[in-house]
Amino acid sequence: MTTFDTDMPPMTTSIGRSTADDIWVQGYDLAGELMGEVDFGSVFYLLITGRLPTAGEARIFNAVLVALADHGLTPTALAARLTYTGAPDAIQGAIAAGVLGAGSVFLGVFEDAGRVLTAAGPTPDTGEEDLERMAAEIIEDHRARGARIPGLGHPFHKDGDPRTARLLALAREHDLLGPHTRLMLRVQERATSPSGRQLALNAGGACGALLSDLAIDTAVLRGVAVVSRAAGVVGHLAEEARAPMGRTLWHMAERAATYEARR
Amino acid sequence: MTTFDTDMPPMTTSIGRSTADDIWVQGYDLAGELMGEVDFGSVFYLLITGRLPTAGEARIFNAVLVALADHGLTPTALAARLTYTGAPDAIQGAIAAGVLGAGSVFLGVFEDAGRVLTAAGPTPDTGEEDLERMAAEIIEDHRARGARIPGLGHPFHKDGDPRTARLLALAREHDLLGPHTRLMLRVQERATSPSGRQLALNAGGACGALLSDLAIDTAVLRGVAVVSRAAGVVGHLAEEARAPMGRTLWHMAERAATYEARR
Amino acid sequence: MTTFDTDMPPMTTSIGRSTADDIWVQGYDLAGELMGEVDFGSVFYLLITGRLPTAGEARIFNAVLVALADHGLTPTALAARLTYTGAPDAIQGAIAAGVLGAGSVFLGVFEDAGRVLTAAGPTPDTGEEDLERMAAEIIEDHRARGARIPGLGHPFHKDGDPRTARLLALAREHDLLGPHTRLMLRVQERATSPSGRQLALNAGGACGALLSDLAIDTAVLRGVAVVSRAAGVVGHLAEEARAPMGRTLWHMAERAATYEARR
Amino acid sequence: MTTFDTDMPPMTTSIGRSTADDIWVQGYDLAGELMGEVDFGSVFYLLITGRLPTAGEARIFNAVLVALADHGLTPTALAARLTYTGAPDAIQGAIAAGVLGAGSVFLGVFEDAGRVLTAAGPTPDTGEEDLERMAAEIIEDHRARGARIPGLGHPFHKDGDPRTARLLALAREHDLLGPHTRLMLRVQERATSPSGRQLALNAGGACGALLSDLAIDTAVLRGVAVVSRAAGVVGHLAEEARAPMGRTLWHMAERAATYEARR
Repeated sequence: MTTFDTDMPPMTTSIGRSTADDIWVQGYDLAGELMGEVDFGSVFYLLITGRLPTAGEARIFNAVLVALADHGLTPTALAARLTYTGAPDAIQGAIAAGVLGAGSVFLGVFEDAGRVLTAAGPTPDTGEEDLERMAAEIIEDHRARGARIPGLGHPFHKDGDPRTARLLALAREHDLLGPHTRLMLRVQERATSPSGRQLALNAGGACGALLSDLAIDTAVLRGVAVVSRAAGVVGHLAEEARAPMGRTLWHMAERAATYEARR
Repeated sequence: MTTFDTDMPPMTTSIGRSTADDIWVQGYDLAGELMGEVDFGSVFYLLITGRLPTAGEARIFNAVLVALADHGLTPTALAARLTYTGAPDAIQGAIAAGVLGAGSVFLGVFEDAGRVLTAAGPTPDTGEEDLERMAAEIIEDHRARGARIPGLGHPFHKDGDPRTARLLALAREHDLLGPHTRLMLRVQERATSPSGRQLALNAGGACGALLSDLAIDTAVLRGVAVVSRAAGVVGHLAEEARAPMGRTLWHMAERAATYEARR
Repeated sequence: MTTFDTDMPPMTTSIGRSTADDIWVQGYDLAGELMGEVDFGSVFYLLITGRLPTAGEARIFNAVLVALADHGLTPTALAARLTYTGAPDAIQGAIAAGVLGAGSVFLGVFEDAGRVLTAAGPTPDTGEEDLERMAAEIIEDHRARGARIPGLGHPFHKDGDPRTARLLALAREHDLLGPHTRLMLRVQERATSPSGRQLALNAGGACGALLSDLAIDTAVLRGVAVVSRAAGVVGHLAEEARAPMGRTLWHMAERAATYEARR
Repeated sequence: MTTFDTDMPPMTTSIGRSTADDIWVQGYDLAGELMGEVDFGSVFYLLITGRLPTAGEARIFNAVLVALADHGLTPTALAARLTYTGAPDAIQGAIAAGVLGAGSVFLGVFEDAGRVLTAAGPTPDTGEEDLERMAAEIIEDHRARGARIPGLGHPFHKDGDPRTARLLALAREHDLLGPHTRLMLRVQERATSPSGRQLALNAGGACGALLSDLAIDTAVLRGVAVVSRAAGVVGHLAEEARAPMGRTLWHMAERAATYEARR
């Protein structure tokens, strides 16, 4: 018997529990109430928030996951493929390598947008005037710090990211255009680039706002994008297993690089 | 201009492509045909196999993803939580740590079962007699090598994993109990433990068989489980951010361990 | 032949190059000039900075690596062991899990201290008066922001981390107590905790300052700690392979945690 | 007070322990006996094996670490750089991505060679005749299975890897050419490729054999290579932070790849 006295906080969990006959996930009977009854995206929502989404919430949450799953031969997809080249026996490592690039530069915008909006603190009861004021404060705060507002502008889809329009249409259809997204839209309407050009709301900004409206904790916003991107990475690895490009990429890099000794 | 001659195989991809106006995933218009139209699990299936699943296939694929997403405070969930304790600023790292434990001991059974079944090579046209012969060969091969047949037996759910029964019922309901699963069931019926006891088909074995029937390439079978488990890990991290147990676990380990100098 | 025009910056590298007969690392013949001639710590220094360290620099750099390699059953060591429990077939994954916890909470202090000191910009020519001014500014800046000064204080070694004294003695012995470390010491002398108590210089702060004096780029300061910690993690995994604690830890967590359904 | 009864094996560790005044590593006083006294490679050896190496052992162990640290723009270096492109704020993630490629294809040979040699079981007392017999059995076993003998042959350094000759010379100089290496050399002398050509002993094979002679447990052989490679990866990241090639590589891949829709 191991006995010890601890002054540490107790450990509590609400996620999973098993008996010899049943497995429970957030209080639901896994086999009886979730499998075959609820799609995977909805169970992911349940795991994070502790409750199942409504039909409209499930549709938007799934659309966000679908929107972020892949973007072609991105650095994350390439890192996963190159890792698979060296370690095809441990595909979990290649997937991990793929998601480790989901940092501040790409998927971080997602979290940053959510953080800015959540900090402003809009609620379903916030009126138009207050949203205006919050938007003005966000813009002014970023201008003063010389910082870019997360969620605005895209290096490639300059006339508007096609995913943004679709996400907003879905939210309107289900009457789920909540306070964070309405605030984000006001920021977008009023903000301009340093050269005076209006900036489009990009998919990261739209997703960050919509997920905040769906009550996803800011701390794990990036985690939602990571799971989505993991699915894309497995897609790339399935292709890499069938038609590898890792070695070609390697030799291409070696030939394209110039060697300049520092010694 | 960089010019180089390469004798390496060409690089081809079918997954993603973007123009200034559109984003394509496996030949589908992401915003117009997938977002809001298809659930995330189905898009994951599309990413891996190159085609959207039928309604029945989507239900089974989602059920497999749901079945594997969480199992409580497993080593993978704990590794993710402990990583988050040290690096809450980079949640992608905690998720990666969580999925890196998806190796041979836990989620590997999944892949091993798929590999054994796929190697036997059953097809929709394989008759009952041939299935019998394949099952006998698999059992004999494992007996000769003193190896356990992957997918059979469970340390905890000894009377049958509740997920297995549910998955098989769903497959029957959609008439999708394919040759790999039928072979797995014959193996289960005939195999016994070294002590002569009959072994239940566990969820890993059922999932491996069903995904093989769904034409998931063996090379990425474990990858399907990894994405599912990543969702569970994010659930644990959402809880860890709200009610942390990482430090308690740390101090518990330090106090429970005995220090034995080797010097 | 693949030809493409690119407006991207050229790729250049100075690190490694191989011919059929030789392997070069930063301009040194690997087999002839480095292996057996120079210790691993010094080659690590060469890889990062492009030059071999002097004897004194090598002794300090090695001492820093030794200082950070292990600290017992830390969250990072536990995360690595739990990952190994599930995936003993892919030890690189368990090591990766171990280093992923080297984030802002633990090893980040290292980088943060270096960043603060480097931003102040002391050089070998900076006089005592200017160091005083820089120290006062650092303290005032943190006080104004209500932020803790990185590198000061330790939750456990309250009377002074034994590693700090040793590192400073080594630096003095080799006349390598450079401007960043001298600035760090002035900050330590003048700074007090909110309750007015003087704070000791912890090992992270000393290491961050000394490595900055050794011309390690702030961008990779944390990377030095990560390699050191990776060695400690492999030590833990060697022990885990021989005398595993992963499963005990798992069951301990399951039994200690209280399950509280949210549904 | 948390009390629980456990039938699990006890947790014991010999690696690290801290008091308020001292930090102990494998029974050594970290600040007093290791820092400044022993190089990092030797402390890494201590962490794994529980004892400090002799001078000769330290020289060989360091030479092995130096030999494996870098090999230019390998897939692992590229994966780390691409991960850094997306997540420069979390360098531990880029390092982890770099080491995750240390799998069966590249650094695995290292472990595989050690495993084959250790399984044969040579000891310092094994005579020449028995070594001959063991070598013949290893060759015959691989021939029968149609398997390549790990450690022999190199795709690039066909006339002999320069690192191999250096490592063997160092081992001879210190009279540390132990039974595993002597067995490896006999295997190399007698083995031929399918086309009848003699195969050179590559660096992976030499390192695997020498580390087995140094009493490194086979379970963590790959871990030694991983720590060494982590140092090389940090070198690449220091360069990437200064002169990035990640985005060029990304665009190069996008332009070089052919898009072939499957739909």
